[in-house]
Amino acid sequence: MQRYKMTVEYDGRPFLGWQTQPEKQGVQDYIEQALYNLLKIPVKIFCAGRTDTGVHGAGQVIHCDIPDGFRVTSTEYKFLEGLNYYLKPAPISILKIEKKEFDFHARFSALKRHYRYKILNRRAMPTFREGLVWHVRKELNLDIMKYAAQDFIGTHDFTTFRSSDCQSPSAIRTMDNVFLEHYHDELHFCVQAKSFLQHQIRSMVGTLVKIGMAQLPPDYVKTALATKRRDVCGPVAPPYGLYFEDVIYE
Amino acid sequence: MQRYKMTVEYDGRPFLGWQTQPEKQGVQDYIEQALYNLLKIPVKIFCAGRTDTGVHGAGQVIHCDIPDGFRVTSTEYKFLEGLNYYLKPAPISILKIEKKEFDFHARFSALKRHYRYKILNRRAMPTFREGLVWHVRKELNLDIMKYAAQDFIGTHDFTTFRSSDCQSPSAIRTMDNVFLEHYHDELHFCVQAKSFLQHQIRSMVGTLVKIGMAQLPPDYVKTALATKRRDVCGPVAPPYGLYFEDVIYE
Repeated sequence: MQRYKMTVEYDGRPFLGWQTQPEKQGVQDYIEQALYNLLKIPVKIFCAGRTDTGVHGAGQVIHCDIPDGFRVTSTEYKFLEGLNYYLKPAPISILKIEKKEFDFHARFSALKRHYRYKILNRRAMPTFREGLVWHVRKELNLDIMKYAAQDFIGTHDFTTFRSSDCQSPSAIRTMDNVFLEHYHDELHFCVQAKSFLQHQIRSMVGTLVKIGMAQLPPDYVKTALATKRRDVCGPVAPPYGLYFEDVIYE
Repeated sequence: MQRYKMTVEYDGRPFLGWQTQPEKQGVQDYIEQALYNLLKIPVKIFCAGRTDTGVHGAGQVIHCDIPDGFRVTSTEYKFLEGLNYYLKPAPISILKIEKKEFDFHARFSALKRHYRYKILNRRAMPTFREGLVWHVRKELNLDIMKYAAQDFIGTHDFTTFRSSDCQSPSAIRTMDNVFLEHYHDELHFCVQAKSFLQHQIRSMVGTLVKIGMAQLPPDYVKTALATKRRDVCGPVAPPYGLYFEDVIYE
C-alpha cells in the first residue's frame, strides 16, 4: 500500500460540489471513477476541503491509498498521466502526485487553507470571464472594504457568517490573514485560516460588498460578529467567484 | 454629429473574427446591430485592429459618428449603458465611451498596439481556463524562448511570419517591444508595435514554442526572418490564446 498526495484543479461550474452525490455529479465521484477506470479497484479519496457547487478548485489537495503492484503507479509521472487520461473530458486536472507516509492526511494534516474570491467591479458584463468572477455593477469603495475586512482577522464566533445548515459543533474560527488586492481590473478577497465554516467565505464577501456599496456601515463586520445571528449577514456571494487556492502542510 | 471613441472587450470564441461577415457573425456586426437597435439608424464603426476568429479583445478600440439629438447619447454614461443593454447576451462589452474630435481615427491615429499571448505549459488539461490559453504539454525552456524572442525586436521583413493570404503591400514591420513573462502558472508573450501583418503574432508564437521545445535552434528566428519564406515558419499558434490588449494614441 502506498499513500499519495495529489493537487487538483477543477472548474466548479458543471459539478454538484466536491462531495460524492447520489447522482454521482460531485468532483469526488469523477476522480474516484477515473481511479476505478485506471486501476479496476475502488479507491476512496479524501480532500483538504469540500467545496460547494460552482466553487472552483485551483489547488485542492487529496490523498488516497493504492495497493502495490500496479504498473501505472510505478512512477508518479505515469500515474498522473493515466489518471488525467481517464478524467477527460471532465474539467478536472491532477496537477501533481507525490508519495507520502501514512501519517499524511489531506484534511487533518492541513495547517492552513487559502481561498481567493474574484470580483469584477464595473458596469459592463464580463465577457471571457463569465462564470469565473462575481460581476458587481455598483461601484465599490475599496478603501472602506479593506478597513472593514480587518475586523474578520483573529478568533471570532462566526455564527453570523455561516450557513444555517452548517453542521460544525463550534462556530469559533481563527482567520490568520484577510486582505483585498487589485489584480488588473479585478478585486480579489484573500483569506487564510486553518478551517472554515459552511458558506463562510461567501458570507464574508457578500457583507463586505454591501459595505463597499455603502449599504452597510464600515464597522458593520464588528457588529455582525458580535450579534451572532445569521439574519444580520449580508447576501451570500455567488460560488463561481470563489477559488480554493492552496493548502499548507507542515 | 459627434465622434465617439469606445473601448471594447469580447470573448473571441463565438464570433467569426472582428470583421463584418455575410452571415453577420463578426464582432463588428453585433456592435453595429446593437447601435441600430439603440438609435434606429445605421452606424458604421471603425476598429484599431481586426482580430481573427477566436482571438479575444481585452482593449480593442473603435470609433463611430453619431448625429446630434439622440436622448440616449446625451451623456457618455447613458450611451454606454444603452449600448451594453442591446449587446446582451453576446459576450461583448463596451468598457468606456469618450467624445473625440473628428481628427481621431481608431485605426489611423493609433501609435502602438499591444497584444498578449497566453500559454499554459503543463501536462494536465486547463480546466476553468479552457479556451482562454494555449495548452502546451511539452516542457518549454523559457530562457531560450526569451533569448530567441529578442530577434523579433526592431524593423524586419516579416514575410516568414505572415499568412500567405496577407493583403498588405509590404511585409516590413517594426516590433517596438517583445518580451515573455511568467504570470502565475502561465507564460505570456507580449508584443508592441504600430501595426502587424495577418497571423503575424500567432506565427511568431508558434515558432518560439518550437524553439522552447528544442525542436528548432535558439537562433532560428534570425534565420527564418532572413529566409523570407512562409514555409520555414513554425506552426501558427491557435487564436484563443491571443488577446488584443491596448491601443496607444497620441
